[in-house]
Amino acid sequence: MSILPSVDNHNKNQLQSFSRLSLIFEGKFKKRHFPQDPPRLYDAAQYLLTVGGKRIRPVMCLMANEMFDTIKEDAYEVAAAIELFHNFTLIHDDIMDRAPIRRGKPTVHTKFGEPTALLAGDVMLIAAYESLNRISAEYLHAILNLFNSTAKKVCEGQQLDMEFEKLDQVNFDDYVKMISLKTSVLLAGSLQMGAILGGAGAGNQTHLYEFGKNLGIAFQVQDDYLDAFGNPEKFGKKQGGDIMANKKTFLWLKTMETASAQQKNKLKQLLSCNDVKKIEEVLSIYKSCKVDNWAKELKQKYFSVAMDHLEEIAVVSIRKKPLQRLAEYLMERDV
Amino acid sequence: MSILPSVDNHNKNQLQSFSRLSLIFEGKFKKRHFPQDPPRLYDAAQYLLTVGGKRIRPVMCLMANEMFDTIKEDAYEVAAAIELFHNFTLIHDDIMDRAPIRRGKPTVHTKFGEPTALLAGDVMLIAAYESLNRISAEYLHAILNLFNSTAKKVCEGQQLDMEFEKLDQVNFDDYVKMISLKTSVLLAGSLQMGAILGGAGAGNQTHLYEFGKNLGIAFQVQDDYLDAFGNPEKFGKKQGGDIMANKKTFLWLKTMETASAQQKNKLKQLLSCNDVKKIEEVLSIYKSCKVDNWAKELKQKYFSVAMDHLEEIAVVSIRKKPLQRLAEYLMERDV
Repeated sequence: MSILPSVDNHNKNQLQSFSRLSLIFEGKFKKRHFPQDPPRLYDAAQYLLTVGGKRIRPVMCLMANEMFDTIKEDAYEVAAAIELFHNFTLIHDDIMDRAPIRRGKPTVHTKFGEPTALLAGDVMLIAAYESLNRISAEYLHAILNLFNSTAKKVCEGQQLDMEFEKLDQVNFDDYVKMISLKTSVLLAGSLQMGAILGGAGAGNQTHLYEFGKNLGIAFQVQDDYLDAFGNPEKFGKKQGGDIMANKKTFLWLKTMETASAQQKNKLKQLLSCNDVKKIEEVLSIYKSCKVDNWAKELKQKYFSVAMDHLEEIAVVSIRKKPLQRLAEYLMERDV
Repeated sequence: MSILPSVDNHNKNQLQSFSRLSLIFEGKFKKRHFPQDPPRLYDAAQYLLTVGGKRIRPVMCLMANEMFDTIKEDAYEVAAAIELFHNFTLIHDDIMDRAPIRRGKPTVHTKFGEPTALLAGDVMLIAAYESLNRISAEYLHAILNLFNSTAKKVCEGQQLDMEFEKLDQVNFDDYVKMISLKTSVLLAGSLQMGAILGGAGAGNQTHLYEFGKNLGIAFQVQDDYLDAFGNPEKFGKKQGGDIMANKKTFLWLKTMETASAQQKNKLKQLLSCNDVKKIEEVLSIYKSCKVDNWAKELKQKYFSVAMDHLEEIAVVSIRKKPLQRLAEYLMERDV
C-alpha cells in the first residue's frame, strides 16, 4: 500500500462546495411540492418556496452526509424535509409576529389571508413528513426521532422569543437558550441527520451537532452586531432595524446588564420613541458600554467552540474543508 | 376437528365493545403528552386534551385492529397519534373560525392567546408523529403513508369549508366532497390504520375505509338534521344553531336547489337577520321543501353503503359486531 493517496482516494475526498451543492439541491427542490387542488391552499404553500431562500439548512445536511460517504438519495429527501419544515416555521412565525414582508415579498398571510396561511403552514409540515417517509426503512426511525425532537425545540424557541419580547429584562443564559432553540438546533439537527445517513458513529454525530449549534449562535451574535454596527450596503439590511423595533438582542441585553442607572433609564425611555434619531442615541450608549467589542468577542467564542468540534470529527481533514469554508464565509460578513 | 367453535375460538371472537375500549384507551391516553418547559406552550397543548372528547377516532382504530387480531401495542400508539392529530385540527380550526367555545370550555386561543394556540397546535401535530415513531419498523412506512395522506385531506377539507362559507351557492357534490375530506377521511383512515396493524389484506382495508367514509357522511347529514329538527334535550345542542350562524348545511343546500324563487329570496334576506324568529322562518321553508324527509333518506343511503362495506369484510361476522353496534348507536340519535 502506498502512503500517498491514490487518484481514486483523492477524488473521493474532494468534496463539493456549498455553492455547488446548493445548485444541485435547488435543481431537485425546484418543483411543485403540492397537489393542484384546492388551488388556494396549495398555491399559498408553494408561493413561499418559490420566492427564494438560501437553503443553508438542507445543504448543510448534504455536506454532512458527504463528509462520510457519497451523497445518498435519502439525504436529498431529508434535506427537502428540512427545507419544508423551515418554511413551515416561517409561515407560522410571520402570522404570530404579524410580519408583512419576508424575502422582500409579501408574507403568505398578507397575500392569502391568515386562515389559509395557517393551513398552508400545516400542509407544509405534513409534506416534510411525506418527504421523510421516502427514505429507506433502515434510517427512518432514527431520522424521525431527531427530526421530531428538533421540530419541538424550534417551536419552544419561538414561544420563548414571544414571551421574552414582553419582558423588561431577560437573563443572558435564557436568551442564549432561546436563540439556540429558535435558530441553532435546526442547523445542528440538519448536520446530524446528514451524518446519520452517512453512517457516522455517535461521537461524530455529536461533534457535528455541536458544531452547528455553536455556529448558529455565533451567527446570531453577528447578525445582532451587524444590525447595529454593520455597513448597510454590505449587510443588505437597514441599519438599526432591531433598535427601531425594540427587539431584544445580545447587544441590548448586555447593555442593560452593564449600563449605568442613567443610561438604563434613557434606554427605557427610548423604547417609546419612534423617531430615527433613536438609533443614534441607542448606538451611542451601546458604544459607551463597549458592547460592540464584547459582541465581537462573544461571536469569536462560539465560533471557536464550533471549529473545535469540527476539528474533533474523526475523518481525514480534507473532508472537513467545505464545512470549514462555509463556516468561515458565514462569519466574514463585515465584522 | 369439531364443527362447533371451541371455547378458545369463542373467546377469541368475542371482541370488546366501544365503551370498554374507550375506557382502556382513556386509561393510557390520560397522561401529560408534553414536556413541562416552556410551561405556557405545553400547558396550552395539554389543556385541550384534558377537557374531554369522545375519542371516537382512536377507539375505531383499536376496534378495526381487534377485528383481525388481539389488539397490539402499536395500535395504541397509532390511536394516540390519531387523537393528537384530531386535537391539532381542533386548535387550528378554532383559530381560523374564531370560535370561543369547544367542549363547553374556552378554546385554546381564547385562554392562551392566538400565537401560543397556533404553536400548541404545531407541537400537537409533532407529538402525533412522535407517537407514530414508536411503532415497530415493520409497519412504520405504511402507517406514515396513510397518516400523511389523511392529514393533508383533512386540511383540504377545512380550506374548502372556509371557501364555501363565502359562496352564495355550493354544488351538492362539492359539498359532499368537502364533508368527506373534513370529517370522514379521518374516521376512514383510523379504521384502515387499525386494519393495517392487524395484518388485514388490501380488500379488507378498503372495505373498512369505505365503511368509515360513508358512516362519517351519514353522521354529518344526521348532525345537520338534528340541528334543525332534533329534540334539543336529547341532542344536547341548541336547536337552529346552524341556521343562526348562516352555516351551509345539507338542508340549506338542498333547499336552495329545490325552493321557489320567492322562497330563495326570503332565505337570502334572512341571512342578515339576527333575530331568533329567523329559525322558525327558515325551518318552515325547509319543511315546505320537504328537506327533512330528504335528509332522512340521504342519511339512510350513506348508512346502507357503509353497512354493505362492513358486510363485505372477510372475517367471521361475530368479529364485526362491535363496529356494527357502534354504527347503529351513532345513527340512533333521535332521527
